[in-house]
Formats: sequence, structure tokens, C-alpha cells
Amino acid sequence: MSTNINKPSLPVSKPLTLGLFGFGVVGKGLYDVLQSTPALQASIKKICIKTPDKKRAISQNHFTTSSEELLNDDSINVIVELIDDADAAYEIVKAALKKGKAVVSANKKMIAAHFEELLQLQHEYKTAFLYEGSCCASIPIIRNLEEYYDNDLLTSVKGIVNGSTNYILTKIFENDLSFKDALLQAQQLGFAESDPSLDIEGHDAANKLTILLAHAFGNIATPNDFIYNGITSIKKTDTILAHEKHLKIKLVATAQKINNNQLAAFVLPQFVEANDELSNVSNEFNGLITESSFADKHFFKGKGAGAYPTAAAVLSDISALRYDYKYEYKKYLQPNKLTLTNDYFLKIFVSADDLEKINKDDFEWIEEWHNEASNNWVIGIIHATKLQENDWWKQTGVSLILHQNPIVNNVEYKKIGKRSLQLAGVI
Amino acid sequence: MSTNINKPSLPVSKPLTLGLFGFGVVGKGLYDVLQSTPALQASIKKICIKTPDKKRAISQNHFTTSSEELLNDDSINVIVELIDDADAAYEIVKAALKKGKAVVSANKKMIAAHFEELLQLQHEYKTAFLYEGSCCASIPIIRNLEEYYDNDLLTSVKGIVNGSTNYILTKIFENDLSFKDALLQAQQLGFAESDPSLDIEGHDAANKLTILLAHAFGNIATPNDFIYNGITSIKKTDTILAHEKHLKIKLVATAQKINNNQLAAFVLPQFVEANDELSNVSNEFNGLITESSFADKHFFKGKGAGAYPTAAAVLSDISALRYDYKYEYKKYLQPNKLTLTNDYFLKIFVSADDLEKINKDDFEWIEEWHNEASNNWVIGIIHATKLQENDWWKQTGVSLILHQNPIVNNVEYKKIGKRSLQLAGVI
Repeated sequence: MSTNINKPSLPVSKPLTLGLFGFGVVGKGLYDVLQSTPALQASIKKICIKTPDKKRAISQNHFTTSSEELLNDDSINVIVELIDDADAAYEIVKAALKKGKAVVSANKKMIAAHFEELLQLQHEYKTAFLYEGSCCASIPIIRNLEEYYDNDLLTSVKGIVNGSTNYILTKIFENDLSFKDALLQAQQLGFAESDPSLDIEGHDAANKLTILLAHAFGNIATPNDFIYNGITSIKKTDTILAHEKHLKIKLVATAQKINNNQLAAFVLPQFVEANDELSNVSNEFNGLITESSFADKHFFKGKGAGAYPTAAAVLSDISALRYDYKYEYKKYLQPNKLTLTNDYFLKIFVSADDLEKINKDDFEWIEEWHNEASNNWVIGIIHATKLQENDWWKQTGVSLILHQNPIVNNVEYKKIGKRSLQLAGVI
Repeated sequence: MSTNINKPSLPVSKPLTLGLFGFGVVGKGLYDVLQSTPALQASIKKICIKTPDKKRAISQNHFTTSSEELLNDDSINVIVELIDDADAAYEIVKAALKKGKAVVSANKKMIAAHFEELLQLQHEYKTAFLYEGSCCASIPIIRNLEEYYDNDLLTSVKGIVNGSTNYILTKIFENDLSFKDALLQAQQLGFAESDPSLDIEGHDAANKLTILLAHAFGNIATPNDFIYNGITSIKKTDTILAHEKHLKIKLVATAQKINNNQLAAFVLPQFVEANDELSNVSNEFNGLITESSFADKHFFKGKGAGAYPTAAAVLSDISALRYDYKYEYKKYLQPNKLTLTNDYFLKIFVSADDLEKINKDDFEWIEEWHNEASNNWVIGIIHATKLQENDWWKQTGVSLILHQNPIVNNVEYKKIGKRSLQLAGVI
């Protein structure tokens, strides 16, 4: 006969007292979300803000401008960092971890810039640092990469990781809005970073790719280690051409195993075919495709920007802290990791208002060549180092968009080599 | 100065010695997968099979027909149960848990039938029972429901959870195959259960829905508690009509909060619009949409059948056991769960070779009425209990397909009531 003692019961969870830094879009979102989830038993004790005299939705006695007030309060066991300034954020996170407090953050710029130090701090002070909200907002991608693909042999992770640029591209493509108007809309809806250049120049997506690289492949990199660009150079003529070919243009982050021990990574605008999962990822949504040896393709889609979707991810981290969850960084810590390389070939489309701006010499091979008064474009094969080392393709008037299948089997093109290009009379 | 001791290192993981029951499609798949993942340090010590004289791909000395040989071997700390027979599987799992061994299974029928006992056994013998492979094969849905949606307020989970029927429906729709030929193909490809009626009559999807209900909403139910059916009754005329209306027909499992404390659940064929995520889930793929208050919509897609996708999920469970992972069943254990109910209204399409087979009296309201020599159909609103209690809609020649937005605001229809139907002269 089983007694009540033998009945399963809820595991004992740690009561969480939160110190929140920042009360912007996401911070306010988290506050609202916590109000609706009393079962979590997590309460915000104090909120540290920069500008005390701003009008706010909740009473002033929730706020302080002193970070020490939160960091030195022993009753606060979790610091939630949701401020914009990546440098200040790093100081806060560092101080909190050193005090043995668990930390939750959504600051991808800060995390990408200090990955190794943050890892060391977690280890040294034996405390948790979680940041699901830093990547694709509501999509639980970090947790899945950490936990689920542990031993399945992951070969690629690619996707749309910036909600703001995806919103802009959707409005340009589907509603024929100008870039400027679309950006303004994204800002009004709270999808864009306070400094929109972080989004539209690709920095934000590149920061997210470094976080994905660490959790998917155990690779610690910075955005400077791979090629990346944003969407500011995409021209009306490019979108017209894409429409004609039944393609869309998306800003895609890619990390792909290219041979037994090497990894290619880049964030660039890319043509996407209608049957590609990413083609159906519109507006502020993000989408990620993983490929692995046995599980094959997985596709995750969810809101990638906005107060509540990001706050929901922050909440899931807070919730995990109740049961002492920590990232294990198993892939980073294992031997025989893949090496990040720029030694691979890309198939690219480059258009330019002036033909002279396209550096033909950098190409291995040119497949198509289009000449028109103010719209010239080329489709060809280029070695990734040429893009990494040279920046003619980042000039005003030039746009580079990846082919729908951008990574080219390098062996083949190494064989053909530049000689073919010369034989074809292109250079 | 930090020393080597202060450097982060891989967490210590438990060495796993596996006892495997079953060497069918998934069992053999798992064997292959484990051969390719030496880093996992999990080895199969012995495989228990039913028929010793079958020709097999690996040496005979791996096998035994004695379950005791595995269960009584103290060096085996994990039992992986991948046999077909749900009753025998339950006995194996029960015995293994009682011996304190961790257990991994993909047997949805067994799990759905014994959920409460299995929960009690895990609690009593303080050991883990994991079954990610039982739901949507490769998609890590159970782990996400357990971990990620813990405190976000989930309102619905719906999706395509049976790869075999989805393969059949895709072949019927896109390749104009007959039901028989499509089923034969699914069986040849290893997508179907050894007893195909489990798939095509909807039992398998219903079993999966009970597992989803437990992990999404903490609700323990059996398939008999909700309405379900398979795809055997779908007629050529139904698919032609769907094509004309630019719809597809999918077998969809749904669990949806319908008011503050109630939950509707059903598995039925459903018309799906082109812009529904589920419309792009083809062949043996599965797809799930979750909706929650703050994260909003999430979509997960991946292979839902086949040796390797299922083995990959089993592998992820084995891998999690190295770090003593257990399901917490937090939603089941929390108070104030939603109550499963059949008190709601559905909008349905019913076609019949003979009009007399459609029981008009059961409808609250009929919106469309089509009469043709051998193709009669009705679109109307029906209360779920009418479908649960009566089975005229399961007769040969009758097919019931849900409207693309099947759940109807019940208050509205209660108000209109049957009187409107009489006024309209239908009954």
C-alpha cells in the first residue's frame, strides 16, 4: 500500500529574488510577464536604471540608480541584465558572477565580445549565466543546442536570427515599402535595437552567430573572424530581380561543417527559394534549420524580436535557475573541435551602379554577367578570404547577395581555377 | 593568476552500459548511431530479441532471448526498450525501474496506457524514465515542453504527430497514389508500425497526444477520453474538393485551452490552409505548433518516422542520462491544472456515399449542404460529445474532416442553438 509520502511531488525549487538592470522594452516586458506567472515565485526586488526622471509605468520606489544597491544586496540571488550598453552590461555581469549570484542576460553584443572571460567566471565562481533571450528571442535554440544535439553529429546551423532586418526585408518585398519607412516601422514596433545600425549593418546577427557557434560547435569566435554584412546596400533593382526569379532576399547566418574538421561561418544577405523553410519566415519572426547526421533536418520558428517574446526567453532562464540549471558547454570543452576557416568558396551575386566597382580579379569564375545603364551584376565564384580581406563589395552602390546554395565544393573550383576565367575571356 | 585547475573542464559523466530490448528498425538504427558516436561512451552489452533464428546484420553473440539476462545484470545501468509489443514492453520497463535501472523507451502505446503507474514507479525507485523518441521521433518536443514552457502560459499544442499517415496523405495528394499503394510505400520505407492499423486508424497519434497532454498541460488522459480517428475513411471526392478549395487534408492532433480552466483535445483529419505551417509538413515529417501567452507561436518541424530520426531521439535520452537528467513532471504535479473536457463545439465537414448515413439531428447548425448522386456532404457545427457518444460518422462510406479553424466559440453557438437549425428548415 503506497502512502502519501510515496506520491510524487513537485521538486523543491529555490525561491528567486531578482535584481533587474534596465527597464526598456524587454525589461518592462519581463516585469509584465512576471506579474502573470505567480507560480514561478520569483519577484523583482529592485530595478536599476540610468535615467531616474523618466516617466515610467510603475511606481518610482521600484527603482534605483545605484548598481551597488542590487549587487551588494545578499537577498538578491539572481541578476537580470537587460540594458543596452554592452560595456556597462559586462561590468554588471562580471561583478554579479563574482558575488556568486546567478545571472540572466539577453545582451548578445556583450556575450559575443567576452565569451571566454564569461565562461571562466562561471567556472571560477561556480554560478550560472544563462542567455536564451540573446539568440532568436523566443526560440529555445541555445537550450536545444546544449541539450539535444549533444551527441548527434551536427553538421550545420543556419537561419534568420535578426527580427528587425527580417521585418524590414518583408515590408520591402511584400508591401513595397522603402528601406527608410520599413526601418521606421520596425523601430516604432520595438523590434529594432536602440542603435539601428547594430541590426541593419549585420552586427547583431554576427553576434548571435558567435553565440550559436559556441553552443552548436564549441567554437569561440568573434564577428571579426568571419564574413558578415547587413542589408543596407540591397537595392530596388536587386529586389525586382529576386521577384522575377521567384526568390526572396533574407539575411541568413550560416555555420556549416565543410569537411572533416573545418567550419565555415558567415552572415550575408542571401537569395532564398520558395521551398526553403526560411522563405516562410516573415516579419519579426526568426527561423533556424539544424542538420545532423541522424536526426536530419530540424526547423525552429518563432518570434525573434519584441518585448514579450524576448521576456519569455528570459523567463525560461529564470525558471531554469530554480532547479540550478547551468550550461555545460560540453562541445567547447570536448577535444577535436572543428576549426573555423575562411578557406572555402562562395557563389555570389554582386550588383553595382558602376561596373568598375566590381573587382573581377577577385573572382575564381564568373557564371553570369549583366550589363545595363545603371544596373550591372555578376554571378560568380569567389574565395571567402577575398571577401574577408577586401572591401570593394562594401562600397556605396554595390550589393552582395549570396546564391541560394552559397557554399561551393571547393575542390572542384580549385581545380578549375582562375585559368578558366581567363580562357572564358572574362579577365 | 589562474592555474590549470581553475580552467573549465568537461563535467564528469556516468559511463553507460546498455541493455537493449528489440532489434527492429529503430533498434538496429540505434546500434548504428552508437557506432558513430564513440564520444558518448555508451556501449550495448546485450540485445534481447524474441526470434533467435532471424538473420541479422551483426554477430549472433550480441543477442539473447532471456530478458532476465539483461535485467539481472548489475553492470547494465540503462535499459533501452524498443520492442513492438506494448504489454511485454510494460513488463520490461516495470522490472527495470524496480531494479533501479534508468530506462529509455519509444513505445508511445505502452506509455500512454500506463502513464500514472510509470510516474509512480519513477518516483518510488528514484530512477529516470525518458521517452523523447515516443513523440514525433526526432523533434525534441517532450524536452522543450518539460523545460522551456515551464512557466510561460501555454495555450495550445497542435500538429502532425504521425509520420506514416502524413506520408500516405502526401502521396495521395501530391502523387495521386491510391491509399493502398501509399500505405505499401510507407511500410517499405519503414515509416509504418508493424501493425499499420495503429497508424491509419489514428491510435498512434492519439497515444502521442496523451503524452503531449501530460507534458504540455500536466493532464493524464487515455485516448478514450477524447475524440480521435484516422485517415482510412478519406475518399477521393474529399481530396478533389480539398484541391479545389486550395486546402490540404492532414491528420492533426490538437490540445487547446478553451477557457480559463478547460482543455479540448482531439485527433482528426483536418483541412489545412496553404498559409498554415502544417501545410508545408510533408511526407514522413512531423510538425508542431505551440502557442503561449508571451512567446507566442513556435513551430517545430523534423522527421517523424524512420530508423535514424527515432534512434537520434533515443540517443539524446541516453546522452541526458549521463548527467542524471529526469523529467520533473512539474505541470502534472502543480495544482490548478486544466480539466480535459468534451464540452465544446466543432465545425466539421462530413461526406457520405449515402445521405442517410449523416445524422443531421446531431448538428447544432448546418452551414452548407451538398447533394450529388454518390457524393453528399455537409458542413456544420456539432457538439464534441455527440461525436464522442455516437459513431454514425465512423461508418463505411462516411468521412469526417475538421474545418481549418475547428474550435468554435461555444457561447455563440449555444445561444443560436438548435432552434435556428429548425428555422432554417434543415431539420
